Amino acid sequence: MPKRKICVVVTARPSYSRIKSALTAIKAHPTLELQLVIAGSALLDRYGNAADFIERDGFKAAAKVFMVLEGENPTTMAKTTGIGVMELTNVFYNLQPDAVVTIADRFETIATSIAAAYQNIPLVHIQGGEVTGSIDEKVRHANTKLADLHLVSSEDARGRVIKLGEDPEKVINTGCPSIDLVKEICTEENLNFDPIEKYGGVGEDLDWKKGYAVVMQHPVTTEYKKAREHILETLEAINKLDFPVFWFWPNVDAGSDGTSNGIRTFREMVKPKNIHFFKNMDPLDFLRLLKHSRVLVGNSSAGIRECSYLGVPVVNLGTRQNRRLRGKNVKDVPHQRDRIYEAVKEAFHSDKHPISQIYGDGDAGIRIAEILATSELSFSKTISY
Amino acid sequence: MPKRKICVVVTARPSYSRIKSALTAIKAHPTLELQLVIAGSALLDRYGNAADFIERDGFKAAAKVFMVLEGENPTTMAKTTGIGVMELTNVFYNLQPDAVVTIADRFETIATSIAAAYQNIPLVHIQGGEVTGSIDEKVRHANTKLADLHLVSSEDARGRVIKLGEDPEKVINTGCPSIDLVKEICTEENLNFDPIEKYGGVGEDLDWKKGYAVVMQHPVTTEYKKAREHILETLEAINKLDFPVFWFWPNVDAGSDGTSNGIRTFREMVKPKNIHFFKNMDPLDFLRLLKHSRVLVGNSSAGIRECSYLGVPVVNLGTRQNRRLRGKNVKDVPHQRDRIYEAVKEAFHSDKHPISQIYGDGDAGIRIAEILATSELSFSKTISY
Amino acid sequence: MPKRKICVVVTARPSYSRIKSALTAIKAHPTLELQLVIAGSALLDRYGNAADFIERDGFKAAAKVFMVLEGENPTTMAKTTGIGVMELTNVFYNLQPDAVVTIADRFETIATSIAAAYQNIPLVHIQGGEVTGSIDEKVRHANTKLADLHLVSSEDARGRVIKLGEDPEKVINTGCPSIDLVKEICTEENLNFDPIEKYGGVGEDLDWKKGYAVVMQHPVTTEYKKAREHILETLEAINKLDFPVFWFWPNVDAGSDGTSNGIRTFREMVKPKNIHFFKNMDPLDFLRLLKHSRVLVGNSSAGIRECSYLGVPVVNLGTRQNRRLRGKNVKDVPHQRDRIYEAVKEAFHSDKHPISQIYGDGDAGIRIAEILATSELSFSKTISY
Amino acid sequence: MPKRKICVVVTARPSYSRIKSALTAIKAHPTLELQLVIAGSALLDRYGNAADFIERDGFKAAAKVFMVLEGENPTTMAKTTGIGVMELTNVFYNLQPDAVVTIADRFETIATSIAAAYQNIPLVHIQGGEVTGSIDEKVRHANTKLADLHLVSSEDARGRVIKLGEDPEKVINTGCPSIDLVKEICTEENLNFDPIEKYGGVGEDLDWKKGYAVVMQHPVTTEYKKAREHILETLEAINKLDFPVFWFWPNVDAGSDGTSNGIRTFREMVKPKNIHFFKNMDPLDFLRLLKHSRVLVGNSSAGIRECSYLGVPVVNLGTRQNRRLRGKNVKDVPHQRDRIYEAVKEAFHSDKHPISQIYGDGDAGIRIAEILATSELSFSKTISY
Repeated sequence: MPKRKICVVVTARPSYSRIKSALTAIKAHPTLELQLVIAGSALLDRYGNAADFIERDGFKAAAKVFMVLEGENPTTMAKTTGIGVMELTNVFYNLQPDAVVTIADRFETIATSIAAAYQNIPLVHIQGGEVTGSIDEKVRHANTKLADLHLVSSEDARGRVIKLGEDPEKVINTGCPSIDLVKEICTEENLNFDPIEKYGGVGEDLDWKKGYAVVMQHPVTTEYKKAREHILETLEAINKLDFPVFWFWPNVDAGSDGTSNGIRTFREMVKPKNIHFFKNMDPLDFLRLLKHSRVLVGNSSAGIRECSYLGVPVVNLGTRQNRRLRGKNVKDVPHQRDRIYEAVKEAFHSDKHPISQIYGDGDAGIRIAEILATSELSFSKTISY
Repeated sequence: MPKRKICVVVTARPSYSRIKSALTAIKAHPTLELQLVIAGSALLDRYGNAADFIERDGFKAAAKVFMVLEGENPTTMAKTTGIGVMELTNVFYNLQPDAVVTIADRFETIATSIAAAYQNIPLVHIQGGEVTGSIDEKVRHANTKLADLHLVSSEDARGRVIKLGEDPEKVINTGCPSIDLVKEICTEENLNFDPIEKYGGVGEDLDWKKGYAVVMQHPVTTEYKKAREHILETLEAINKLDFPVFWFWPNVDAGSDGTSNGIRTFREMVKPKNIHFFKNMDPLDFLRLLKHSRVLVGNSSAGIRECSYLGVPVVNLGTRQNRRLRGKNVKDVPHQRDRIYEAVKEAFHSDKHPISQIYGDGDAGIRIAEILATSELSFSKTISY
Repeated sequence: MPKRKICVVVTARPSYSRIKSALTAIKAHPTLELQLVIAGSALLDRYGNAADFIERDGFKAAAKVFMVLEGENPTTMAKTTGIGVMELTNVFYNLQPDAVVTIADRFETIATSIAAAYQNIPLVHIQGGEVTGSIDEKVRHANTKLADLHLVSSEDARGRVIKLGEDPEKVINTGCPSIDLVKEICTEENLNFDPIEKYGGVGEDLDWKKGYAVVMQHPVTTEYKKAREHILETLEAINKLDFPVFWFWPNVDAGSDGTSNGIRTFREMVKPKNIHFFKNMDPLDFLRLLKHSRVLVGNSSAGIRECSYLGVPVVNLGTRQNRRLRGKNVKDVPHQRDRIYEAVKEAFHSDKHPISQIYGDGDAGIRIAEILATSELSFSKTISY
Repeated sequence: MPKRKICVVVTARPSYSRIKSALTAIKAHPTLELQLVIAGSALLDRYGNAADFIERDGFKAAAKVFMVLEGENPTTMAKTTGIGVMELTNVFYNLQPDAVVTIADRFETIATSIAAAYQNIPLVHIQGGEVTGSIDEKVRHANTKLADLHLVSSEDARGRVIKLGEDPEKVINTGCPSIDLVKEICTEENLNFDPIEKYGGVGEDLDWKKGYAVVMQHPVTTEYKKAREHILETLEAINKLDFPVFWFWPNVDAGSDGTSNGIRTFREMVKPKNIHFFKNMDPLDFLRLLKHSRVLVGNSSAGIRECSYLGVPVVNLGTRQNRRLRGKNVKDVPHQRDRIYEAVKEAFHSDKHPISQIYGDGDAGIRIAEILATSELSFSKTISY
């Protein structure tokens, strides 16, 4: 029997972390063949060139697709998606996969979904059913309605996908593959590398060994004009703190320029003494950095997801993670410098939380590969009500 | 106060009939400005060039967009959609509408939805919530998840859109605007034109005045290789009947070639005596032709929708209209020549059914315009559960 | 030493005939690897699906690219070219050829040229330097200016490419590969197949064994509104003749609809008794049909090129082949039915001409493969004056 | 009589300077209507957002087109061009201009040429016939072969376009419109603004009043991997000089990242004391800065063109301006730090050169407008030999 060809499309650095353990399991599975497509910002230096990490991890791309239109505004996001549909259609047409896997909710993931669904290729959606409240949510649920098989990350999400009219047999809670990576590094007692030495970055050379915070704040798409305002609140709050902070640049969504420019200007003018900036980091090293940090600040989903398992306190800013299932380690705070300052200071000095498995037990990747190998793959469905 | 700019995208001939009365009402409304975009197969001679009808009806296009890639297969459908996203994004960027209206469930309608939703333009979806069971259904429900305001055609559909997690206040049963056209011609006692004289077409010159049937059969996208087989069953059945039949060529979905070639070959070889073929017809004339016919055969949604109000018997073939809400005038029959033959013969000699308002009372257009003029327009939403 | 990878892009049925012998020679060459890309109308049933012929001839496509936008007007021709640039760029990026071959002058060939030249892949242009006077000529000479190596079909063309500022060492007269096919069938004494039996087609069943004519008339792009008028002149002239005629449908250029509709309407209304219509034919069979015909009528380049070697009389209509180098077998006639009628009648009853080698000696394919294997490949050049 | 609609496409900041005086003259002309299209990097903040300057100068865009694909490599340059063809075709289809103007030789200008030529719109090419030796040259001459009217900048260029087979009556030496701007500011005795105060930028606050140099170095497309190496040679040379230097960031060609990263790294690590960096400047202010500088260093065409009229000494680096007609003010130097250092030092202390009119007398804009208003516009041509 020929192996099932599973085509996974990775379009951004964070998506890679969310799928890596599944990629490993698919590649290792005796009856599966992995067809990895690297596309979008995952190919771009400006966004950390995930392709480099991916290839260093031993994966080989079956195709690479440049599709990100410059401009970082809602108009170019839409056009990027259109280009993605055109390009990925070609890719799938030539690769002839037995199933296509699309990940989560980034704007360009719907390009993968359309290219597969319209060509009658069974579409598997990872991480459907979650709730955030921005354009991401429109995209995520639209992906659900285009997909044939749903591998979700929590019971909460599973219930929601079923309510969306999907056949319960086609909605399986595998846990989130991102937790697999967390589990992998979770037993390491100390941070086993020097972040500044290994990753360079810009800004002060910090003495982080006695405890540090991490910041990662992305623009919120539907309010992108406010991105600059929001980031300044965080910058002002962080700048007042007396402990070292590692700060990560935002990803490629609309408004990234607002956020990036905010950071750049602040750096030039204020020259903050306690912040060191990174463009990107190997995903495992990033998790290590998180695990050994005192607090994560920002609106990254890593705060909601990975940190639940790690038990690291999180100061979650604004609306980006609204309504996403969260553990007790998360404190929600609005974009106000005083509130941010207080919450981060308090979290920094608080204890770690116990492990929570709301997003999985750390074996999602293997579970996903097994399901892809054994479940019936179809591309025809109808709503359940 | 400036008028609200309402951008309606018409991508195909049948979509025009479904929205025409709403276009008229929007154009006439004192606080609305209509921005009409004509795109896709609505511009192409091969598919009846709806643009001609539209302009003859007094509407002016704010933009025209060629986007249909040749090939009529699943691959070109997907790529057409990608091109549509790119092009329509430009169009909306330049027109700056206050809301965009997308219609129903054709594959390319999701291009309209993405181009609007990603640019934070409030998206209004007409005719969501219905059920069919093919790729159309994936597209329709994905449109629902991208849309902010849902103007549905039946109570049945309204319930389904709400179940999909939409805010009930944003889901309004206006009835279907296609019924408005039906109401308009419904009082005419006889067919007031000679179809062959007015529309030419090819095939026999029929004596239709003593009663005739109409056939309209589209390929079913996810089974497009069977299109030829299916159409031959219908052709064989119809060819055996002893009354005149008007037959309409299918639209542009994948497999259209299978269907079209089937018809073309049958014509060349069998030279059927009782069939006359049309490429297209003014939508009102088409309704007139339906109203005065004895039976409609095929899988057109007109059989489900318009014929419910008209009370014309329908022999509905195959799965294309599966699970769509239907009146008592519809008889479902598989793609088997004998079953088709029997059903059509029986329906031809049966009586008309009474008017049914399951798809509206004939005032949907005015209702839609009023809602677009007065309801709050937003582009931010979250799932209700 | 690894083989040189030679990527040849075939975008239309006639281009395939023009390159077939070179494809065979490249495939057979010990130090070359053929990467065949089939694109554009070569994939479409409406234009004779050259892909079928190509694969039946034993070639395997490295990639297939759907890129023809529907509409057949100047706007869709331009957009098709844009799509082609996007798609072919991807294809070359993934195939990493050592050289790309673009053929002649069809509008979409410039897409191949841009995709290669911009990616610094050495570009080989076949059949540059010829003159016609329409948009084709703009495209052909623009291809020359983007190309690095020029394999031309005649001394006349070689001189012109050099005048265009190209390095004479990079301009080589190989002869036209289309003549290779002609040479191959040139010794066959009789037509060894029954065209109607083998290819079907529509129209009268002709008794062609005592002599027949062939017609092939394409729309002239920059005058596409006149296409219908022009084709009617030819149809009227041919209809008056008293010998059998095989007529081929036009290719995909803008205005094809004018020409096609002209033919279709004429058929329906006039029902010509002496004409049989074909959509397409295996290229070798087409040459056989030409070789044994009494006269070729129309504006096909086959009249100028293949028929010079065959010695078949040609009645060449209108401006499409203007200024192309021609043999003594060609008589130029304007689009006037009387003039056409007289010229065709006279040619039909005249003798064959002797073989002319102005377009090559029949060994172009082997010569091209050898040059591709041995010449220096570069992508950097400057004008010679 | 309706005005002639002249559509000018500006795709980059430097192109705007090259056409500005013509835009002014077209806008002011009684029988012309200007349709200005702003596209490509001219819309992007990263490349100086020329759109802002353009609108501040009182021009209004008839359309804006986002088309630059991220990645800045040969592959994305090619795909950007494909997107440009698609988009600009739409734009011209909707604007229906009487002529389209394309400028010079940037890779994306061929998109304008194809979109116009294929739609049978007369195409006017500005600044054809020049020689450089990179991909630009392929593009420029291909533009010439697609264009119908050639408005060139020098007698040298005129001769070359005619040799390319263009009708001498269609090749007019108007001089270069960029010289018009030079003439405009040429009488100002001192720099009438403080560059750092007005434009910010980053780096040292220099005392420039006693004499300064300007640097502008772009990556050379076909050698883009060397971009970083080349820029470092220049940075090292300039860093050793003892006078102040204003340095401009490169534009959007492939390799820009190599160049930009080279500069960025050098800044972080070396912190040069005598260099101040600008992203961009109002074109007139840039000319003022040039006029009052002691020397221009780099490979910008401004050194060849504008500085010939200004008489400012130029140290021209590498191959980018190879074979372009130049005045006596230009000294050519390879990418070697010592050679650069010596040449810049010598030029800094040398005298100005007299005005040269090899690129025009400063009235090109008015001449261009008049020609566009009065010359016959056609889209049909054939090569002259």
